[in-house]
Amino acid sequence: SNNFFLLSGPCAIEGEDMALRIAEHIVEVTQKLKIPYVFKGSFKKANRSRIDSFTGIGDEKALKILRKVSETFEVPTITDIHEKSDAAMAAEYVDVLQIPAFLARQTDLLVAASETGKVVNIKKGQFMSPESMKHAVTKITETGNEQAMITERGTMFGYQDMVVDFRGIPTMKQYAPVVLDVTHSLQQPNQSSGVTGGRPALIGTMAKAGIAAGVDGLFMETHFDPANAKSDGANMLDLSLLERLLTDLVALRQVVSGF
Amino acid sequence: SNNFFLLSGPCAIEGEDMALRIAEHIVEVTQKLKIPYVFKGSFKKANRSRIDSFTGIGDEKALKILRKVSETFEVPTITDIHEKSDAAMAAEYVDVLQIPAFLARQTDLLVAASETGKVVNIKKGQFMSPESMKHAVTKITETGNEQAMITERGTMFGYQDMVVDFRGIPTMKQYAPVVLDVTHSLQQPNQSSGVTGGRPALIGTMAKAGIAAGVDGLFMETHFDPANAKSDGANMLDLSLLERLLTDLVALRQVVSGF
Amino acid sequence: SNNFFLLSGPCAIEGEDMALRIAEHIVEVTQKLKIPYVFKGSFKKANRSRIDSFTGIGDEKALKILRKVSETFEVPTITDIHEKSDAAMAAEYVDVLQIPAFLARQTDLLVAASETGKVVNIKKGQFMSPESMKHAVTKITETGNEQAMITERGTMFGYQDMVVDFRGIPTMKQYAPVVLDVTHSLQQPNQSSGVTGGRPALIGTMAKAGIAAGVDGLFMETHFDPANAKSDGANMLDLSLLERLLTDLVALRQVVSGF
Amino acid sequence: SNNFFLLSGPCAIEGEDMALRIAEHIVEVTQKLKIPYVFKGSFKKANRSRIDSFTGIGDEKALKILRKVSETFEVPTITDIHEKSDAAMAAEYVDVLQIPAFLARQTDLLVAASETGKVVNIKKGQFMSPESMKHAVTKITETGNEQAMITERGTMFGYQDMVVDFRGIPTMKQYAPVVLDVTHSLQQPNQSSGVTGGRPALIGTMAKAGIAAGVDGLFMETHFDPANAKSDGANMLDLSLLERLLTDLVALRQVVSGF
Repeated sequence: SNNFFLLSGPCAIEGEDMALRIAEHIVEVTQKLKIPYVFKGSFKKANRSRIDSFTGIGDEKALKILRKVSETFEVPTITDIHEKSDAAMAAEYVDVLQIPAFLARQTDLLVAASETGKVVNIKKGQFMSPESMKHAVTKITETGNEQAMITERGTMFGYQDMVVDFRGIPTMKQYAPVVLDVTHSLQQPNQSSGVTGGRPALIGTMAKAGIAAGVDGLFMETHFDPANAKSDGANMLDLSLLERLLTDLVALRQVVSGF
Repeated sequence: SNNFFLLSGPCAIEGEDMALRIAEHIVEVTQKLKIPYVFKGSFKKANRSRIDSFTGIGDEKALKILRKVSETFEVPTITDIHEKSDAAMAAEYVDVLQIPAFLARQTDLLVAASETGKVVNIKKGQFMSPESMKHAVTKITETGNEQAMITERGTMFGYQDMVVDFRGIPTMKQYAPVVLDVTHSLQQPNQSSGVTGGRPALIGTMAKAGIAAGVDGLFMETHFDPANAKSDGANMLDLSLLERLLTDLVALRQVVSGF
Repeated sequence: SNNFFLLSGPCAIEGEDMALRIAEHIVEVTQKLKIPYVFKGSFKKANRSRIDSFTGIGDEKALKILRKVSETFEVPTITDIHEKSDAAMAAEYVDVLQIPAFLARQTDLLVAASETGKVVNIKKGQFMSPESMKHAVTKITETGNEQAMITERGTMFGYQDMVVDFRGIPTMKQYAPVVLDVTHSLQQPNQSSGVTGGRPALIGTMAKAGIAAGVDGLFMETHFDPANAKSDGANMLDLSLLERLLTDLVALRQVVSGF
Repeated sequence: SNNFFLLSGPCAIEGEDMALRIAEHIVEVTQKLKIPYVFKGSFKKANRSRIDSFTGIGDEKALKILRKVSETFEVPTITDIHEKSDAAMAAEYVDVLQIPAFLARQTDLLVAASETGKVVNIKKGQFMSPESMKHAVTKITETGNEQAMITERGTMFGYQDMVVDFRGIPTMKQYAPVVLDVTHSLQQPNQSSGVTGGRPALIGTMAKAGIAAGVDGLFMETHFDPANAKSDGANMLDLSLLERLLTDLVALRQVVSGF
């Protein structure tokens, strides 16, 4: 069909129960709306601002939960990797490997991800131009893997803010399918607390503008209790708001795909 | 109705024939599409990068052409003013006074415009935040004029580029109706030539994202021959592309206004 | 000599006593340190964020105080103008006309200032590149006035911050003498209060870096009681700190001018 | 003494002869000028824009050359690491481990570097605020290592430019000794060619402003033939210009350290 696809789930895998609970809800909603869906969860958070931030429940434990979600609901899964050696390990459990934005320039990591043969989703660095993502995608394709995706998640705008430049969507679609990460795009980094802030009230605005600008997919982190999530709570979507938002976006997509 | 409105016309009034020709076409298209329309034309260009740039055909001559357009096609008109003394003069000829982005902080100019009783369209300075437009609107309302509008036209991003921050649309709608200037938003200023550049191929992307984000109106400069326009040719929409674009935007608006 | 020159005084002329008191102190210090000195004071503040900000004590009254300072201490004076008609009026009272940063692209204003024959100090717009100041200076020189100066006062960096790009100093020195405005460079605009913030503790760092980078002059606003100044109190230098700072800067300049 | 220290050498270790030749010259100059000196060379370039960029001559081979430079000239050495496993390996050969700017948020990498007991030089991410470097330094000190340093190398300013914010120098000196990387600070990233550009003519301006602003050390990449260097040729200092520049900087430092 002509629908957009969705990468969604909690920021970090905090445990099996929460992962299954979130997955179950999103699977139900996306099936109803005919949105191709990939469950997202990080097995490790490697780049927190502060050393005392939550980093995970254990790599293998979290990866096994990702596999369980996949088997239980028959959905593909995505997780992010941080060192070359993560690539082969994570590839045994998930379907899509994600390169974090801060690491989008690390050639060895991109090549290691690519060589697993999995789909590779490269987040655009907050310090990179849309045009420079051409070189990032080439690092995947020259390794013989044709399944690169690009995810926009905002560009640095002053020290404590980010902005999404929608001019970059058509530019990056020349290189690979483009996803808009609507929750991280609303982050406000470098806050003095050492904890990244955000503006979740704008998730709908961001997502609608993205669909109108022609993105192929959306990425959004969600949790049934964002205030108590162990990471990125400041910008996640409350799970209870997901169906209403996706319903609107599907209607929007239908019009846009007719242009 | 629930449609968006349109401010459109050439950048500068170069002469009567071109103004009438452009107005006639836009009037025809917008009537068909039921888009409320205001004809736009500058009677003077006061802030060119270079001293040898085109600045106008004479103030009164240009203002009279604006009036003629208004009378011929029964449409309201808008023009931009640059000094206090322009306000009363221009108000005799047009329906909406526009404050240029560079001048959005000049209190005397805003107050002079406001005191004419006309609608005042304040362009957001390239150096201003969406939140700071609250104070600009207050300068109008405290003079007793309730007809302020805000136009987004991009924010400075590095020396030679601009970016539209769509997070600002809902923010500014709290203060006044919000227009997206899709052609100036695509400018690339401070080029070494002393002539501002632009990316007109992205006009459609920008306009669609704006409608999806909830703007009340669109602003776009257009010309039947952008390459030979006397100012801002680098980012104007070719008049022949207008109907196709507006048709899509009206369809998009219909969906969005149902959310 | 090889010393730098100094443009300094209060932000706004609040009255005769305060102007004379500030001038007297700066004249004494700069004579001791052999720094060519120009007294600075605004006769009107035309671009405040909020409509209820202080704008002045009356144009002619303030201009007469500027003349009195000049006659009393035998120093030249500088003030900023905002509309074409201000140029000839202010030129009767002061020696240097200053174009505010927000107005650096207003051709008519630059030409009007230039045609008075006075020195014209153009502040670089917060939205302009160093290279684009070439065109601003040309607007002065093509009117037959060879006495243009450029003042750097920071460039927009995100919505609420400014940054000084020291790479621009050598670039702009190709076009005209370059001044660093160390107090406005430390402003933080667009604060939610509608009152511009600042970081005056960094005035010394900024001034020293400027001298080392080769500026021809420094601009700094000062007041004997910054907390009670009627405008820009957030970033002015306390007058009691001036002598110590200038003494260091003269020593630095001596070394730098020998390179 | 009160002198600044210098981290300098080629960008990448291209071979033994070039490393020794560059080291010999810098050692001679810095001994004459009494500048504490650390030889810098990368054993691997892991984050090139393009996949076909030069990445190194082999890790162990390059590290052994670093040791040879150290033994030959009795100078400490510094190299940058990219994955946790690099830390212990590189620590066998060099005295200072450097965290690349893109990786400044990778907690595991900082901790691994810290646990070697070596000095750790963290480059400020192009996407980080000066204030956020406090948290980066804490990641070192909480591991029990008190020898962190911070290196400023510019902050993203639009897509294709960087700017050094000198306000950050005093801020970051609160957390650790601060170095200014004058050559990378002049980079212009994301060029359409996929090769980073630069403005080496401004190295002197940048270095002088840095010393005046109070940095503890300078970092500069140099080569006897920048045009033929295998990486970062666009912004390196020609080795033949080093002595003249350092001589000026030592004189400047002497004045500044007396303030």
